[in-house]
Parts: sequence; structure tokens; C-alpha cells
Amino acid sequence: MKNIFTLTFTFLALASSSLADPLPSWNEGVNKQAIVSFVERTTTAGSPDYVVPTKRIATFDNDGCLWSEQPIYFQLIFIIDQIKALAPQHPEWKSAEPFASILKGDTKKALSGGKKSLIELAMATHANVTSEEFDQSVRKWLSTARHPKTGRPYNEMVFQPMLELLAYLRANDFKTFIVTGGGIDFVRVFAEETYGIPPEQVVGSSIKTTYEVRDGKPTLVKLPELNFIDDKEGKPVGIHQHIGRRPIFAAGNSDGDFQMLEYTTAGKGARFGLLIHHNDDDREWAYDRDSHIGKLARGLDEAKERNWNIISMKDDWAKIYPAEKK
Amino acid sequence: MKNIFTLTFTFLALASSSLADPLPSWNEGVNKQAIVSFVERTTTAGSPDYVVPTKRIATFDNDGCLWSEQPIYFQLIFIIDQIKALAPQHPEWKSAEPFASILKGDTKKALSGGKKSLIELAMATHANVTSEEFDQSVRKWLSTARHPKTGRPYNEMVFQPMLELLAYLRANDFKTFIVTGGGIDFVRVFAEETYGIPPEQVVGSSIKTTYEVRDGKPTLVKLPELNFIDDKEGKPVGIHQHIGRRPIFAAGNSDGDFQMLEYTTAGKGARFGLLIHHNDDDREWAYDRDSHIGKLARGLDEAKERNWNIISMKDDWAKIYPAEKK
Repeated sequence: MKNIFTLTFTFLALASSSLADPLPSWNEGVNKQAIVSFVERTTTAGSPDYVVPTKRIATFDNDGCLWSEQPIYFQLIFIIDQIKALAPQHPEWKSAEPFASILKGDTKKALSGGKKSLIELAMATHANVTSEEFDQSVRKWLSTARHPKTGRPYNEMVFQPMLELLAYLRANDFKTFIVTGGGIDFVRVFAEETYGIPPEQVVGSSIKTTYEVRDGKPTLVKLPELNFIDDKEGKPVGIHQHIGRRPIFAAGNSDGDFQMLEYTTAGKGARFGLLIHHNDDDREWAYDRDSHIGKLARGLDEAKERNWNIISMKDDWAKIYPAEKK
Repeated sequence: MKNIFTLTFTFLALASSSLADPLPSWNEGVNKQAIVSFVERTTTAGSPDYVVPTKRIATFDNDGCLWSEQPIYFQLIFIIDQIKALAPQHPEWKSAEPFASILKGDTKKALSGGKKSLIELAMATHANVTSEEFDQSVRKWLSTARHPKTGRPYNEMVFQPMLELLAYLRANDFKTFIVTGGGIDFVRVFAEETYGIPPEQVVGSSIKTTYEVRDGKPTLVKLPELNFIDDKEGKPVGIHQHIGRRPIFAAGNSDGDFQMLEYTTAGKGARFGLLIHHNDDDREWAYDRDSHIGKLARGLDEAKERNWNIISMKDDWAKIYPAEKK
């Protein structure tokens, strides 16, 4: 009898796992179908599109692809909050831009200096600390800060359909990587817990680091000097440097991801390029060609000829955030 | 009956796998015992030294640790061979150092200019090519070049005991990385086939790369500009940048690995530092304090107080290269 039970149970478990929808928050349609078909074709032995597991590399942008990015990048909100928290130790900031405007609550003016201002703010909050101190400050911020519109912790503003997609790919022996324009050390703090992506599978922008022994303790110190910008043309470079082989699947949402998708889908064999179109002003935000953040224009223009899939958040996703009731 | 057979077979398989020696080329002794004890303590649930699988990071130097490095680094032999092969396209090299000396077969004189000469030679052979062209040139070289002393292909001059150690760690859910002073793109060409280490788990020195679309084809081009030197203090920096967490196991053979071991073994909990001492002039080479390559002095002096294990190639290893008869 025991054997019959065991067999029956095994059969039911197998049947249910093959019948269960791995992407329950994705509405039925061409995009969901394309994803499932790609995974099945590349993972079925004997299929002309079969790819050996070690080459199943999938890369994901973070801002606007795995979590929201409005009204401004969440890492920029972290920077602003840190400037405010550190201000008592920096009386000189009261009269020095871009810090003065941040302290007056005028982010727009603070950022009017463009890239230079942004880098100055980033260095003041990311450099001259040990890597452990930086981790701690991000961790503390994540546990207390709340998004101005939703009131949610930032790491709960991740996209449920993308969490399912990551898990689905991994269940099919894909190795999932984040390739972000954001800071590599910032994203690493929450990537493993939030996305199931370990630190060694995060590629991102960085400042330089130096190694020294402080009071007998080996320490990594973050320096106020740019190391690498992992955006646009930088994404294929970061992928080459960090992963060392071309992905077969890449997902993004802005023209900052264009080159990553271009590089990925130009490889031989089956390839998948995915762009998320933020077009749901009710549940998230709607923006594309004219947005100051996450601008998507060339991607929309060329997706069709390049055979990339444009995901409509409004139509393709039954749910946006994990906490939402369906 | 079938069930009894199955049970018996399963039992025998389990018994034999737990009895089989995972490190057959390691002689019995304190070092082998220390390795096995470390792996058992860190992977046995309930052990006070237990480490969750995601944190089981092990890093290995390459030159002199996973393969030989005498009479000069193998990548330098590749460089010399490439200079000779490319010479017809560079008539100017006949009268310009360090190229002229290389072409006359006087490596010593060519390298007398120190780091500057070495970088000049490296750039002439590693830069201004696409990443695919570079891969091809390394692959071709590996398949044809033979070591001057052993007559073996270079990728057969790897250490059998270290191959076993890598496999043993991986079988216990360690993630194995190479952290080499050598070129990341050079080592990646053979690391997966030779060591079972995929490209994304290779950390190394690099030159800068740029991304461009050439005749409609996305291409990565290697530039004649240094990006990162993954040696000495650079090793913990490279580990931080690439892996993003501190290893619990590190292996090397020279003072270029000192900081990697220092950083690794300064972490909390169980840690393992391993240094290979090249002291077998019969089967390999014997060198340490005064060697022009793979100098090991501080490591020998401080290993004991730091609780690092010094591996004697002569005494600890029953076999050096895979092809050797035991």
C-alpha cells in the first residue's frame, strides 16, 4: 500500500507542478506566451533552440524593471535622506550648492547642476566610509524610509510579475543577474532577500574602493572617485567585465537598457529582449518618451523590427506589487 | 524484490559515496585533515561553524595555485608567442624595445624595463582587438603551444590535487572563484573546461573595454588602457567589486595572495587560508623567498600565527599533474 500511495503522490506532485502556472500575475496573452515558449524551447533537450544550463544567462535592469523609479530613483531619495541626516556634521552645506537646496527641500534646484551636482551628492553619501558602514546605512534607510506616494517601504515596491519571472527562469536553470545603472553596493544590500539574487550576480555602477588594514582589521574603504558607470553602452561592457558571456535573455524598461538588449539579442540562437512599458497611471505611473526618468523612445521605435517584447504594465500584469490584492 | 534491490543499491551507493576519498591525490596528514574538517564543520547543520550555502565562497589564485608558473607566467609566454606571430605586421618592432629583444629571443632583456615594458607588450597583444578575436587567439595558442620543459599543453599543467579540492568544495555547495593577477579574459578562455569554473566566477586583471556597433554588429573592443590590477591589495578590492562578500576559504601560493588570505581569514566564524609551497624540484619547481616569480616570504613568516595551512607540494601531494602516473 505504501508504494501505491508514494507513486500516486509522486504522480500528483508532478502533474500539479507541470500544470501550475509559474507566472500567475501575468495575464494570458502574446507576451506571457512568448516568455513561456522561449523558456520551453531553450530548456527542452532535443529542441533546435536548446541552450546548455551554463549558458542560460538572464540579465535584468533594476530601476523601473524590478522596482518602481518614480517620482525619482529610489537611490536618489536615499541620497537626499542621507544628506539631511548628515547635515549637522556639515555646517558648510548650509551655504554650498547642491547641498543647500537639498536641505531647503528644493531637490529640483539641487539637481539643476546636472551630472556634476548628482556626483557631488553621491560622493558625499557613498564615499569615505567603509563598505560595512555603507551597507549599514542602506539597510537602516530601507527599514525606516517610506515612499511619498504609496507609504510603502521601497523594497516592497517591487514588481510581483517580475519576481515570478525571476523565479520561473531560475527554476529552469537560468542564472539571473541584475545589471543596473544604480550603485552596485546599494542594490546588493537588498537584492538577495528581495529578488533572490546574490551579491555576486549584481552588476552596477561603482566608485573606487581601497583596501587597508585599520587597527589590525582588514577594511575596504569607498573612495570619492568614479569607477564605472553601468548605463547605456556601459551595460554590455559591465556584462562583459562581470559575467564574461553574452546573456540570452535581457529585460529593461528604458533607453538606458537599449544597448544591453541590442547586445543580448544580436547573439546566435534563441534570444529574448523584454521592455516594460510604464503605462499604468492608476496602479503605478505612466511615462515614456518625455520622462525625466526612465525615458523610453528608441526602444519603443525599434522593438518591433528587433523582435523585442514590449510589456504593457496595464494589460499584461494582473498585479503590480506583492502586497496588492488581485 | 524490486524494492529490496533498489533499497540495497541506494544504501550501497550512499555508503560508498561517504567512504570514497574525495581527495585521492592528497596524502594523509594534517593539511588534508584540516581541509576535510573545515568542510565538514561548515556544512553540517547544527555545527557551531555551520555556514549557509550562499555564503560558502571559496577563492583561488591561478598562477602557481591551480597551474604552474615557471619558468615565467604562462600568459607571458602567450604574449611572447603572439609578439612573434604578429611581427610581420609590425616591421617597426625590429628596432623598438621591448619588442626587438623579444624577437631576438632575449626575454630577460625585454623585461628589464620592468612594469612599463610588460604593459607595453601586454597592450600590443591584448588590445585593439574585439573580445571575440582575443578569445580566439588564446584558444588557438592553448591548442598548439607546449611548455618548454614538460612538452605538455599549458592547460594540462594544472594541479590534480587542486582540481580535486575544487570539486570537493563544489560537491559541498561551495561556490568556487578564481581571483588571479593574470588577465580575466585570458583565464576565462579555459577556466570552465579546465577547472569547472564559469566565466562569471573569474576575477582578474583587465584592460578597458568599449562597446560599439560595427557594420550593424554589436562588438566589444579591448582598449590599450589599464582597467584594474587584481594583485596584492587589489585582490580584496576585486573580490569586493566582483563577488560582493567575503570568502570563507582562500587559496594562494605567493605574497601576491597575502591580502586575499588576510581579508578572508579576518572574517568572523570558521575560515580557511591555504598557501601552496613550491618545494618539489623533481616533479615541479622549488622556489619561495628569492624567486622572481611567485615570491613567498611574508606568507611563510606569518602563516603560523595567522593559522594558515602551508601545503608542501612534496609531502602533501601524491600527484602533481593529471597525466602523471601515481
